[in-house]
Amino acid sequence: MKPAHRKIEAPRVTVDIVIFTIEEAKLKTLLIKRKFDPFKNIWALPGGFVRSKEDIYAAALRELSEESGISGVYLEQLYTFGSPKRDPRGRVITIAYFALASRQKLRIRSASDAKDAGLFSVDDLPRLAFDHKEILEKALERLGNKIQYTNVLWSLLPEYFTLGDIQRVYEIIWGKKADKRNFRKKLLSLGLLKPIGKLRKGLRRRPARLYQFKTKKYVELKRFF
Amino acid sequence: MKPAHRKIEAPRVTVDIVIFTIEEAKLKTLLIKRKFDPFKNIWALPGGFVRSKEDIYAAALRELSEESGISGVYLEQLYTFGSPKRDPRGRVITIAYFALASRQKLRIRSASDAKDAGLFSVDDLPRLAFDHKEILEKALERLGNKIQYTNVLWSLLPEYFTLGDIQRVYEIIWGKKADKRNFRKKLLSLGLLKPIGKLRKGLRRRPARLYQFKTKKYVELKRFF
Repeated sequence: MKPAHRKIEAPRVTVDIVIFTIEEAKLKTLLIKRKFDPFKNIWALPGGFVRSKEDIYAAALRELSEESGISGVYLEQLYTFGSPKRDPRGRVITIAYFALASRQKLRIRSASDAKDAGLFSVDDLPRLAFDHKEILEKALERLGNKIQYTNVLWSLLPEYFTLGDIQRVYEIIWGKKADKRNFRKKLLSLGLLKPIGKLRKGLRRRPARLYQFKTKKYVELKRFF
Repeated sequence: MKPAHRKIEAPRVTVDIVIFTIEEAKLKTLLIKRKFDPFKNIWALPGGFVRSKEDIYAAALRELSEESGISGVYLEQLYTFGSPKRDPRGRVITIAYFALASRQKLRIRSASDAKDAGLFSVDDLPRLAFDHKEILEKALERLGNKIQYTNVLWSLLPEYFTLGDIQRVYEIIWGKKADKRNFRKKLLSLGLLKPIGKLRKGLRRRPARLYQFKTKKYVELKRFF
């Protein structure tokens, strides 16, 4: 680091949060409609400035709670975006996070700086403010990867689910169908799930075993080697 | 984001870079000895403030070049560290990067803010300034993972190498021996390498095929599914 007396125009620092949920068989994200310029009336990711004495992860948790009423969900630092032109007001560097929340947990409300808030399918987004489209694309890529070798989906699914349920979630996130036999074999071989010893019975379908994640503590599996 | 007129004490933003190389069969990282307070005379990761109109990736490239004379190597954003207490001077958020460089490419020199610079084995580090130990640990973890499903090792190895050479690099990074047969089978199955059709002959060893990475463009392999 250069000596502190060297004059540097300090940038401002924000956190922005991509909150993923599943609703009506679609992967959706929470957006807020901006009440103020720049990008007044344009949809944006929820977020805000990091406070002077606040840890950045704490800032992300605070924004998550303020904007969607949720806590206790999976929240991960995604990437920091720092192009000098990304905010017309001046230099703003943003630390992006992503969160996974079941639809039941999300309470959608407009914070004081928002005109409106809503869930949007990631396949059918409105125009987004700033570089938020780029942030969302990065989050989608990370999510698509992470569900292959971690247990983060516990945060998107209800407590108990069938293998059919979880396969649909994978298919929705990846945007493509998976072969049932292969998928189940691979998924169970990861060792992240356990059967709870109960069946879900439906009128028009065969009873299906219910599963849950063995733990909600973060698990990252070894890969090729 | 909150309206711009809300008063926020702006943090300062730095980039810090973990530069990995291999020397004498050890994974090493470049450290600089700080010339100024805080942490005067303590070793630290190379880095510095992001300039007002500079992209953060450009800042990392600039620091990399200033501190080690290298360019054209693999450089990736690692993680952003933003504990409010990490710098005794006040609020400084740092965006950490990591780079991989073959020893031949590295020119070690002291920048104007450093008293000294040198390579240190990651297994035998001096006391580090700030939270740089934590940053280094995160970088080590990322590196250990990334070499399992990407081609980033092109940047740490010479242009041509034997499977024995690259196995040693994996073993050095992971800090453990690998079974030769299994390792080779798995490594070649990734499809990242190609034989160049030449052998390396040695006086005291059997001739060994030389390989190179198929591309230096970033490749990330699919994982379990």
